[in-house]
Amino acid sequence: MIIVTTIPELRAARKTLAAPVGFVPTMGYLHDGHLSLVRRAKAECKSVSVSIFVNPTQFGPQEDLSKYPRDLPRDLALLEAEGVDLVWTPAPADMYPPGFQTWVEVEGLTTPLEGAVRPGHFRGVTTVVAKLFNAMGAEKAFFGQKDAQQAAVICRMALDLNFPTEVTVCPTVREADGLAMSSRNAYLSADERQAATVLYRALSAAKAAYDQGERRAEALRKIVTDIFAAEPLARLQYISCADFDTLQEVDQLTSKTLLSLAAFLGKTRLIDNFILE
Amino acid sequence: MIIVTTIPELRAARKTLAAPVGFVPTMGYLHDGHLSLVRRAKAECKSVSVSIFVNPTQFGPQEDLSKYPRDLPRDLALLEAEGVDLVWTPAPADMYPPGFQTWVEVEGLTTPLEGAVRPGHFRGVTTVVAKLFNAMGAEKAFFGQKDAQQAAVICRMALDLNFPTEVTVCPTVREADGLAMSSRNAYLSADERQAATVLYRALSAAKAAYDQGERRAEALRKIVTDIFAAEPLARLQYISCADFDTLQEVDQLTSKTLLSLAAFLGKTRLIDNFILE
Repeated sequence: MIIVTTIPELRAARKTLAAPVGFVPTMGYLHDGHLSLVRRAKAECKSVSVSIFVNPTQFGPQEDLSKYPRDLPRDLALLEAEGVDLVWTPAPADMYPPGFQTWVEVEGLTTPLEGAVRPGHFRGVTTVVAKLFNAMGAEKAFFGQKDAQQAAVICRMALDLNFPTEVTVCPTVREADGLAMSSRNAYLSADERQAATVLYRALSAAKAAYDQGERRAEALRKIVTDIFAAEPLARLQYISCADFDTLQEVDQLTSKTLLSLAAFLGKTRLIDNFILE
Repeated sequence: MIIVTTIPELRAARKTLAAPVGFVPTMGYLHDGHLSLVRRAKAECKSVSVSIFVNPTQFGPQEDLSKYPRDLPRDLALLEAEGVDLVWTPAPADMYPPGFQTWVEVEGLTTPLEGAVRPGHFRGVTTVVAKLFNAMGAEKAFFGQKDAQQAAVICRMALDLNFPTEVTVCPTVREADGLAMSSRNAYLSADERQAATVLYRALSAAKAAYDQGERRAEALRKIVTDIFAAEPLARLQYISCADFDTLQEVDQLTSKTLLSLAAFLGKTRLIDNFILE
């Protein structure tokens, strides 16, 4: 497994990889969700590359950049065990050198949901993903459905800007009790960890109602808010029933719908979603 | 010479080209300035590709998009004669399909000069160049120094977003009387064409003063405004002495400086510049 830091090192190492290359961009502190993307890349491509970069421009000033969990030795051991060919661990000063002033922005899709409560977040995401894509030059890239809006935004960016990298969105990986895997789960106390199943429980209850024919968005949202109301350690930030393609809220579920939410467990903010179709 | 329109056609044709590929993005209605870029690409690369696309997103609502000069058969004949390998003539509906919503923006460098008088212009330029670069996947790309700020902005974008395409800026090509070649020169009446030499005459006079030791920006600007004042058919829009790297106005010329101007000849807007160093 080749490990590189600078972009010239990356470009040299990239040339040695057999095509097609499958690329998994990450912020590290890897869990089975990330590894499922690596395995998918490995199944579909001749080589697999992974980046590990906690991207400062996608964190707001009040967010958890400085305390975002990091464990590079463990990450590298996990990727080595998966048979990854190339790991790129760029330095923030190399990604954002003095004079940096170029941004990639997706407009409409970034307005609601995470974009509404995390101003500037997606500008940071799309800018760094554009940089990672351009630097890696992979044929395919793999993202997780857990970050549903991010996945939609990156697919839109790749299409709109004619990136040669084909984006694949892979299913959310969950713990045994349904909690979506996330590096931020590491922040949770034991009590909060137990209470955090409320995200999955609430989404599952709404999906059960949908499967039984409920098509009123307000009724589905109420199922979620009621379940959250019964969980004192959790605070629901938003619950959304949105058109899957536009991410605009709907009143009636008539086509593929993204049911998504954000919630606080103490100071830890978690997100999750189900696709209803 | 292969001629393609859609992006799938382009990607298929691109694979047949020997590397390195040199790419010349144009808006067509080609003149010797464009052809000098083609020749430079041919000298430095194994294959040469050219795009012809009058990009709507870089024109303001009051600008000359609809009447921008076009002559595709003539352009193709010129490129064929130069031994170009691949010409891409994208359709606006393929470049900006319904739902398009992603933009690339360079911040500081786009604020003064052309950016100040043409709001949104550079957002259109950087977005389309990002698309052209991603679709073409060329090793090198060639731009003209005549559009000095555009060249600086594209170099910055390519650096900031880690594009694998290396950008080269080539000298301005001029008519015998000094007028910088531009597709927009076709708009000029005979009288305006004659008066248009004022751009070159004014810049040359300022450069002569610089060469004789003048380092006060205000004095150089005054030389230009005085020469324009003596030319009734021309109206100076701006004259700038700016730091070459930041494009910020200077008082004293202490390092590499961009002396640039925009002027109207009737309704036709022309730009030109000299580098002082």
